[in-house]
Amino acid sequence: MNYSSKLIEEAVNAFSSLPGIGKKSALRMALQLLKREEHEVEQFANSFIKMRNLMQYCKTCCNISDAEICEICNNKNRNQNIICVVADFRDVVAIESTTQHKGLYHVLGGLISPMDGIAPSDLNIASLIERVEKNEITEVIMALSATIEGDTTNFFIYKKLSPFKINISTISRGVSVGNELEYTDEVTLGRSILHRTPYESMMKN
Amino acid sequence: MNYSSKLIEEAVNAFSSLPGIGKKSALRMALQLLKREEHEVEQFANSFIKMRNLMQYCKTCCNISDAEICEICNNKNRNQNIICVVADFRDVVAIESTTQHKGLYHVLGGLISPMDGIAPSDLNIASLIERVEKNEITEVIMALSATIEGDTTNFFIYKKLSPFKINISTISRGVSVGNELEYTDEVTLGRSILHRTPYESMMKN
Repeated sequence: MNYSSKLIEEAVNAFSSLPGIGKKSALRMALQLLKREEHEVEQFANSFIKMRNLMQYCKTCCNISDAEICEICNNKNRNQNIICVVADFRDVVAIESTTQHKGLYHVLGGLISPMDGIAPSDLNIASLIERVEKNEITEVIMALSATIEGDTTNFFIYKKLSPFKINISTISRGVSVGNELEYTDEVTLGRSILHRTPYESMMKN
Repeated sequence: MNYSSKLIEEAVNAFSSLPGIGKKSALRMALQLLKREEHEVEQFANSFIKMRNLMQYCKTCCNISDAEICEICNNKNRNQNIICVVADFRDVVAIESTTQHKGLYHVLGGLISPMDGIAPSDLNIASLIERVEKNEITEVIMALSATIEGDTTNFFIYKKLSPFKINISTISRGVSVGNELEYTDEVTLGRSILHRTPYESMMKN
């Protein structure tokens, strides 16, 4: 597209370099910025520079954090004996919004995937083992995606943690809430029958 | 949502203040920025500040421009006698991408809309009349939306320009290329019969 303006073109290219943004949406965004006050646009732009330059990884759980130790690890009201293992920061946000997990997290930074060249040593697994070893952890909840990579990572960590006297659990898999049986794939449906839960425990939520 | 990080939250809020961006897409964008180098993020952010601070309006056609006179008005290869009147910059981009218009533009900055409190005096109409008066203009092409506001603005400008010896045309309205007759609304279909064009002229394109 010809914008007849280098300035617009640069801004459009910047926006369209983001995931899921095409040239037309990028132009709409750039024109919307033009309508704002100069100091508002500066604040808008500086929030990205600030985030990139000041963001660090929590020394305990490897989550992204504003400080050396993240807000969640610093929160003494949380159960310090339960660790929920997730693949990345977005999973922390997703689980936090359910408000069902009161313990801490450990962010692996990905999943084991030989196809993508991601080995166990590329992930924050050693620091998880160290945490379990040095702290009084009673339970590790594995909250990884229900994919081959997730299952592989689950198994690898399970083997590594089996010498310790802790409970290792995984989040439950089954029919999504609101889904009709008819449209559920047979693997999921089969497992949901295999791992059926007592009706009383379902009544609690 | 709880991001457990002020820095991420600020960046997510900045992105989600843009049109069409929700909190989840904004988080995806912010995390993608975290993966880039510091200087890349600075360049990304500065392109918006630069655009906002340096952008101006072309003194001739009122289009947004990097300089006092925009690239299109400065281009001597373009037909200086034809002006295409559009509502805003996005329409210029859309028409430019068709490569069918070889003349100049005039950007009104909106459409007359009593409902939204936009009067003719709020638009760049006086400068259009002045341009037609002072330059050797042979044709004014009205390229406004086919809405009540577009039609009102068309009529207002038509009345203002009628004292001058110039051709005033509007872009054609009819069945969209690729659309089936069955699904075309009756007003459009009725007009397309009323304003039918000789088959030979359609063959040219």
